[in-house]
Amino acid sequence: MSAFDLPRLVALLHGPDQPGLVARVSGWIFERGGNILHADQHRDMEAGVFFQRVEWEPGAAANGVAMAAEFEAFGQGLGMQTRVARSEVRPRVALFVSKFDHCFHDLILRWRTGDFDADFVAVVSNHPDLEAAARGYGLPYYHIPVTADTKAVAEARQVALLRELRVDLVVMARYMQVLSAWFLEQSPAPVINIHHSFLPAFAGGRPYHQAYERGVKLIGATAHYATAILDDGPIIQQDVARVTHRHDVADLVRMGRDLERMVLAQAVRVHLENRVLVYGKRTVVFA
Amino acid sequence: MSAFDLPRLVALLHGPDQPGLVARVSGWIFERGGNILHADQHRDMEAGVFFQRVEWEPGAAANGVAMAAEFEAFGQGLGMQTRVARSEVRPRVALFVSKFDHCFHDLILRWRTGDFDADFVAVVSNHPDLEAAARGYGLPYYHIPVTADTKAVAEARQVALLRELRVDLVVMARYMQVLSAWFLEQSPAPVINIHHSFLPAFAGGRPYHQAYERGVKLIGATAHYATAILDDGPIIQQDVARVTHRHDVADLVRMGRDLERMVLAQAVRVHLENRVLVYGKRTVVFA
Amino acid sequence: MSAFDLPRLVALLHGPDQPGLVARVSGWIFERGGNILHADQHRDMEAGVFFQRVEWEPGAAANGVAMAAEFEAFGQGLGMQTRVARSEVRPRVALFVSKFDHCFHDLILRWRTGDFDADFVAVVSNHPDLEAAARGYGLPYYHIPVTADTKAVAEARQVALLRELRVDLVVMARYMQVLSAWFLEQSPAPVINIHHSFLPAFAGGRPYHQAYERGVKLIGATAHYATAILDDGPIIQQDVARVTHRHDVADLVRMGRDLERMVLAQAVRVHLENRVLVYGKRTVVFA
Amino acid sequence: MSAFDLPRLVALLHGPDQPGLVARVSGWIFERGGNILHADQHRDMEAGVFFQRVEWEPGAAANGVAMAAEFEAFGQGLGMQTRVARSEVRPRVALFVSKFDHCFHDLILRWRTGDFDADFVAVVSNHPDLEAAARGYGLPYYHIPVTADTKAVAEARQVALLRELRVDLVVMARYMQVLSAWFLEQSPAPVINIHHSFLPAFAGGRPYHQAYERGVKLIGATAHYATAILDDGPIIQQDVARVTHRHDVADLVRMGRDLERMVLAQAVRVHLENRVLVYGKRTVVFA
Repeated sequence: MSAFDLPRLVALLHGPDQPGLVARVSGWIFERGGNILHADQHRDMEAGVFFQRVEWEPGAAANGVAMAAEFEAFGQGLGMQTRVARSEVRPRVALFVSKFDHCFHDLILRWRTGDFDADFVAVVSNHPDLEAAARGYGLPYYHIPVTADTKAVAEARQVALLRELRVDLVVMARYMQVLSAWFLEQSPAPVINIHHSFLPAFAGGRPYHQAYERGVKLIGATAHYATAILDDGPIIQQDVARVTHRHDVADLVRMGRDLERMVLAQAVRVHLENRVLVYGKRTVVFA
Repeated sequence: MSAFDLPRLVALLHGPDQPGLVARVSGWIFERGGNILHADQHRDMEAGVFFQRVEWEPGAAANGVAMAAEFEAFGQGLGMQTRVARSEVRPRVALFVSKFDHCFHDLILRWRTGDFDADFVAVVSNHPDLEAAARGYGLPYYHIPVTADTKAVAEARQVALLRELRVDLVVMARYMQVLSAWFLEQSPAPVINIHHSFLPAFAGGRPYHQAYERGVKLIGATAHYATAILDDGPIIQQDVARVTHRHDVADLVRMGRDLERMVLAQAVRVHLENRVLVYGKRTVVFA
Repeated sequence: MSAFDLPRLVALLHGPDQPGLVARVSGWIFERGGNILHADQHRDMEAGVFFQRVEWEPGAAANGVAMAAEFEAFGQGLGMQTRVARSEVRPRVALFVSKFDHCFHDLILRWRTGDFDADFVAVVSNHPDLEAAARGYGLPYYHIPVTADTKAVAEARQVALLRELRVDLVVMARYMQVLSAWFLEQSPAPVINIHHSFLPAFAGGRPYHQAYERGVKLIGATAHYATAILDDGPIIQQDVARVTHRHDVADLVRMGRDLERMVLAQAVRVHLENRVLVYGKRTVVFA
Repeated sequence: MSAFDLPRLVALLHGPDQPGLVARVSGWIFERGGNILHADQHRDMEAGVFFQRVEWEPGAAANGVAMAAEFEAFGQGLGMQTRVARSEVRPRVALFVSKFDHCFHDLILRWRTGDFDADFVAVVSNHPDLEAAARGYGLPYYHIPVTADTKAVAEARQVALLRELRVDLVVMARYMQVLSAWFLEQSPAPVINIHHSFLPAFAGGRPYHQAYERGVKLIGATAHYATAILDDGPIIQQDVARVTHRHDVADLVRMGRDLERMVLAQAVRVHLENRVLVYGKRTVVFA
């Protein structure tokens, strides 16, 4: 989990389980002079699915680019969906924001501290409010207003921008618009959203108000991949904080900001470290 | 929170807020020679409701029984719903169980250790399975089978039994029957239930299966007062535990047992200490 | 806990327990037309000490300044140490920093969001590194270098500055110098420090290294008032995070930053809300 | 983590890191018809040590006993300390207790529920108090009194008993005697102890009193392997609970019982599942 010294490859595989997968994958790497640094796998016994994350140094003589492509072909030959990331290629991240700035500042400050092996390349917003702050951090700011009438056009502009900037990950840092099914299909990058409740409780709008009305004793936040069904995508990370009758809605909002910051940052981090595999509505998050 | 040395009175009040309530209540007690040991109050600013818990020693010359009655009249004269408990009167508790025994053993062992200032007086079950264990603890066991056809008769027997035994609190320790609206109206005692999810998520049946399917990263348990609407009563206590993709449903069930034990025991404890006030779907739980 | 609408007074009292204190304090306020919004008290049964925090609106006709002074005299007449704060008077806070910036940014961003009812008036540092960032936030920056030889002079300059700026609270936001007993005696304001371990475990230097060596499964952070004995002052807040064998020292440092941020911010908040009473090595923190 | 359906082998290895270890181990198993169910490994980069846990089904034709022995030889040939457990062989556990019964009941009830794949074979105590309870669970009870004068003799009897009963694990379930270095050397089985503090804070006697005096805001419990230095052995599991100024020492003791139960049970469970590797003062606990 520390800084990458030598170039590394990280593969994520999943597919139908079969005997010998661990041996074949590790054998393939070893025969080509690679040194496995971490390998973790999981079997969903009921569904008969095998999941693996393996991280290795390709060896002095190896060509990382070629080895990544070869491994993907090898994995697919085993009947596994296979994706290989190279540590030398830093993922490019776009933040989508509106007016709330707590996740915005938090993610950027973590990035500047070196917590994420990634390049933040754009801040996209439907409001102008955070432009000065973004530019203060040296980040380009794209103000794309969204109204009911202009939503389709705005989303087309957003998608074009993500393609142009070759974005690998979109992070909705309290972006207060629902992305359409069209956007999610067209986006060149997966989208991580933070919802300010412990999903599936309190999906939809005003979750802190809902939580207050119901009288729960814990509030939560949930980071998940955005899908066409609102607040229903595969969950990456969740956490909760204890509240009492003394806390009104304003207190829940304040305390929730800490949850949102932490949960979203943790989700972004494990995604960027290629630790997350999605299947169905579930995720495998390798530790 | 320690053992009661001298007799004490504990009053729970709530009603429309008005200036001077704290002064009037404490003045009333002081003038009669009482010594306030704890006093805690809360205002729901939005609803304009005042809540108070006050615990005091009546003073050497005082008659606790009379003082309790006088205080109730005093509180009602202030327009407050008022209930006074005397530490000398130990609440009488009935456990409702089915086959699962983890909450059953846990509550009884805590009681024997002295964690609850109460008398456990009966174990009621729709199955015979835990009879030997209950008798081993010296507790009478009432086996009242329940089927769809006999439910009304069985509930009538249960209510009669609770009245006969002068029960003050019913604890559903994983009792696997829904209590009818009729039972809840007729019961001489409030009913605390433990639901094995983080309500309102996963209400109804098989919550661990629901949690597994949704892929949540935390599982929970919720202790609440039973009401006519299933899993919708005022929440007393909740807690969660972290799970990963490695945990199958059987693991969630196992880990959930610890949550259920802890959360139910904490809820029973604060109820027995007269720390819980219900209003609407919410509770005030004085620390 | 929400924004102050009308002016309020908050009193913190403690002293020898005696019957009727709650009634006398609430009666005093009620007779003068005040409306108690919150009152909380605690008795240390063993030590025979009574602690109270009471928050009230003085009433339309009242003079808050005079009433605060009168209440202090009244409390002292009861034999209690008494301190009254007025919500109209915002405490003035100085941050002491070195090179680490995570607590620095975190506290200032929370302050700008309105989490603290206080004025941040100065950033003091033994290094120049954070000057641009401080000025970006509009805060004056005082660079006072400290070496073994110049420490006494530097501390004299710091104390003079705190007096000149009428500072009410000093927050050591990972300030990497030990403040001398002289400084702590002369400082016009209490000092809150954040230590990056679960005190009393791993006091002194390099606590994350110590934690790693010992193989603990949880790391912690502790916010406490600084006293002349290093890492030994009264604890205000603590929290922990789970670690595994997979985490090396660099991971502990990274994960610890979140703990430090949260714990320090919570401690500063309860201090600024006049919720903390110190006695001996212990604190009473009213919820 | 679920019930063992087919016989399984679990190997724990550790030793000097070298390239290809993952491939060699998985290749060895695959070539002999084994099917790896779980494999997890860890590298201590600084120390250059490799750790692995691998769990597999030997295959229909294989002889589990022989394969376990062969694998141990194979691992040692790689320069690794290697230990193989067979799921068909249930570990034999002895509980050491004194008078406190909360961990005693908790472990036995979990065992009866099926949480541990092990046989509890004896309860050993320096007091007679828990004999009836142990016999009620059908467990033999060995009352071996210990005084300063008889300690050496008593420990010799204990060691003889452990050997006679072929005990694989000793669990000190709040056994209130320090085991001598002699005992720990002679014992045929490792010893897990529960200490009622967050070690290394508050080692030694009366930790809840120490915690109260220091005014900490969290109390803890620590399960560790007993070594000749008191409260200094490798930590397996730790947890904490939040306390406030309202909690006196009796409350800490009561709340601590829950921590002790949970932490000890979790440590026993991971040990019995062959998930724990010790090196130096640290443990690797495979999830």
